[in-house]
Amino acid sequence: MSACVEDVARLSVNDCGDQADANADEDVVNPWNVVSASATGIDYDKLIVKFGSSKVTQELVDRIENLTGKKAHHFLRRGVFFSHRELNEILNAYEQKKPFYLYTGRGPSSDALHIGHLIPFIFTKWLQDTFDVPLVIQLTDDEKFLWKDMTVEEAEKMAHENMRDIIACGFDPAKTFIFSDFQFVGRCPEFYKNIVRIRRGVTFNQVKGIFGFGDSDSIGKISFPAVQAAPALSSSFPFIFGEKSRVPCLIPCGIDQDPYFRMTRDVAPKLGYPKPALLHSVFFPALQGAQSKMSASDPNSSIFLTDTPAQIKNKINKYAFSGGGATIEEHKEKGGNCDVDISYQYLRFFLEDDEKLEQIRKDYTSGELLTGHLKKELIGILQKLIADHQTARKAVTDDVIAKFTTPRPLEVKRQC
Amino acid sequence: MSACVEDVARLSVNDCGDQADANADEDVVNPWNVVSASATGIDYDKLIVKFGSSKVTQELVDRIENLTGKKAHHFLRRGVFFSHRELNEILNAYEQKKPFYLYTGRGPSSDALHIGHLIPFIFTKWLQDTFDVPLVIQLTDDEKFLWKDMTVEEAEKMAHENMRDIIACGFDPAKTFIFSDFQFVGRCPEFYKNIVRIRRGVTFNQVKGIFGFGDSDSIGKISFPAVQAAPALSSSFPFIFGEKSRVPCLIPCGIDQDPYFRMTRDVAPKLGYPKPALLHSVFFPALQGAQSKMSASDPNSSIFLTDTPAQIKNKINKYAFSGGGATIEEHKEKGGNCDVDISYQYLRFFLEDDEKLEQIRKDYTSGELLTGHLKKELIGILQKLIADHQTARKAVTDDVIAKFTTPRPLEVKRQC
Repeated sequence: MSACVEDVARLSVNDCGDQADANADEDVVNPWNVVSASATGIDYDKLIVKFGSSKVTQELVDRIENLTGKKAHHFLRRGVFFSHRELNEILNAYEQKKPFYLYTGRGPSSDALHIGHLIPFIFTKWLQDTFDVPLVIQLTDDEKFLWKDMTVEEAEKMAHENMRDIIACGFDPAKTFIFSDFQFVGRCPEFYKNIVRIRRGVTFNQVKGIFGFGDSDSIGKISFPAVQAAPALSSSFPFIFGEKSRVPCLIPCGIDQDPYFRMTRDVAPKLGYPKPALLHSVFFPALQGAQSKMSASDPNSSIFLTDTPAQIKNKINKYAFSGGGATIEEHKEKGGNCDVDISYQYLRFFLEDDEKLEQIRKDYTSGELLTGHLKKELIGILQKLIADHQTARKAVTDDVIAKFTTPRPLEVKRQC
Repeated sequence: MSACVEDVARLSVNDCGDQADANADEDVVNPWNVVSASATGIDYDKLIVKFGSSKVTQELVDRIENLTGKKAHHFLRRGVFFSHRELNEILNAYEQKKPFYLYTGRGPSSDALHIGHLIPFIFTKWLQDTFDVPLVIQLTDDEKFLWKDMTVEEAEKMAHENMRDIIACGFDPAKTFIFSDFQFVGRCPEFYKNIVRIRRGVTFNQVKGIFGFGDSDSIGKISFPAVQAAPALSSSFPFIFGEKSRVPCLIPCGIDQDPYFRMTRDVAPKLGYPKPALLHSVFFPALQGAQSKMSASDPNSSIFLTDTPAQIKNKINKYAFSGGGATIEEHKEKGGNCDVDISYQYLRFFLEDDEKLEQIRKDYTSGELLTGHLKKELIGILQKLIADHQTARKAVTDDVIAKFTTPRPLEVKRQC
């Protein structure tokens, strides 16, 4: 996977993380910065060791399938969600018919979302459908405001527009609560109380160690991590779980968000809450592959959810990094390299048919298929995906957003 | 005035301030700690120089009287509110019939309030009555929770009970909004937004310099000062002043709270707001005088608002430090020392009749009056004050509190 990546979950908000990991021999992965030390990209196995998380094993995938009676999502089967923390605890709860909930989120951005941003939401929707549990989605407009040169109102507007794309992913309104920090804090005293409880339990030394904050950072940045931690305490949502609730949660997120939740897992037990479980995804590679950095300001570096079919076709044909031979002859002789071919990499995310994907892999590796075939396949899939998304997004009116963002009881079938 | 004092405004919450000023030759005055370097108590003139504030001069008192057509409160005339920052700006606004508002507050405490705690509220009521302006009163239950070993619920309960005493001081419900942070943040998104705006504009280095925070302090403490700063921005109360308002405010408070508002005055202009003006009070001396430290855990060290007439009498007779001679003969010969006599000091706060006070001062200094006379005078005044307070407090039901704490428009006569 590429070192030049865009985070798939919350927005990278930079300006800070570079203070954290300074060792040039190591990949840097934190909420504000993702830099690979190697041209071949982030070493995810090393990251698991460094972060102290656990690999999503075949055994774990099998257990999910056995418990739910459903085939595991291809993101699980293909290592897109590759790492976890105590997922077994959540599966134990499920097995024992005890409640849990899902929590994910996003740092809002002004630019149109790109396809990589959909990954955590596509997967979270699958988790919600499969386990039939409540879901809370946080938009950290306050974080965005703290890290970027913008007004509160601009950050709020971004959060509002981003909600449209998130809701368009098809979440169940009866089981999903979406909020932006600026709005929700002012609507729910319990949320703020939990933020303050967390802040009392975390020192500057700790956030310095975890996030690399320095003395010249604002007290806004320094105290922000508690805002992202608070939704992992179920009592932050008294209207869903009750004020005294201690419901465990599972957080699907990009691996770059892990520092927030390491902190949360440290502080939650001190407040009498279970540690949140985590499922980490890899990063979504840039069109140009491992050698170039994806940039939101460069419209040719990624496929946006606002792109037209023609734009999608042109960008993939023109920019998707090829793992094929320099000439047709060379390609036929030596075969293609799926590990670096961006079209193949994207197909791993978006082509659900396992057999077809495996056939493509074989035929491309042997040299039988050219990059052009992979691109054509990918173009068709993404044109449909994005056209469907655009249709769904149009149906997300402000009234629909208001429905999702109103604090209210959700359908919680299991006993809380 | 005594070095062994209790802050008259927000509660001292210690555990922190000792990191701030380490120079043993200097008085230490910050929100968590008040220690005099000298046996004669805090040197207020030096403090004005150190803090860079201005003395409340006779000229300023005269201007207030000329503008309002009322005699200045004896706290102003007698140097209880001895220091200020840009009070002239507020008087200019008043003169030009432009709006301003009052902001004061208190760190809630579990113990019954004592008479010293009334000082800022008695004075603020006078300001409200005299200038006919809106008033907001903050109870920092979150601060209390962050500094003390207690639950959020305990801190909230203290704030609620403290509100009873504050309301009993006679504030106009049509012009007064009272709030605790834990409740209000969850009721008003604009308040949280201003807190985050302030946090973005203040670095850890700055709060380290102002408050003496260290790396092992919680991120709750480190980020708290923004919560006390936010009510100085009028848009924190959109229901009173409007979301876009930039109404100047005047903050009457104990001088120990000045660090919070130095920070506020630094950050407010960057956010497009006027700097808040300040009026600082001296500390309220302990019964035992300059040599002993007032302690809330020692029921004999101060006069509580819950004391009976007999308790008041006994405590003053038994503990109020005397500036008189060791024997009647010595007293008659050398006279009493008003500067250290606690009964006289308390009379300066609570005996409104200037002529009577001056007569007492003369007669005590000359030796004509004994300490016993001063004590008797003081006992009578405090018995009435506290009995009246107890009666007023009884009338402050939960419904009355709910009226004061409901976000609502206030009667603002002047154009905002």
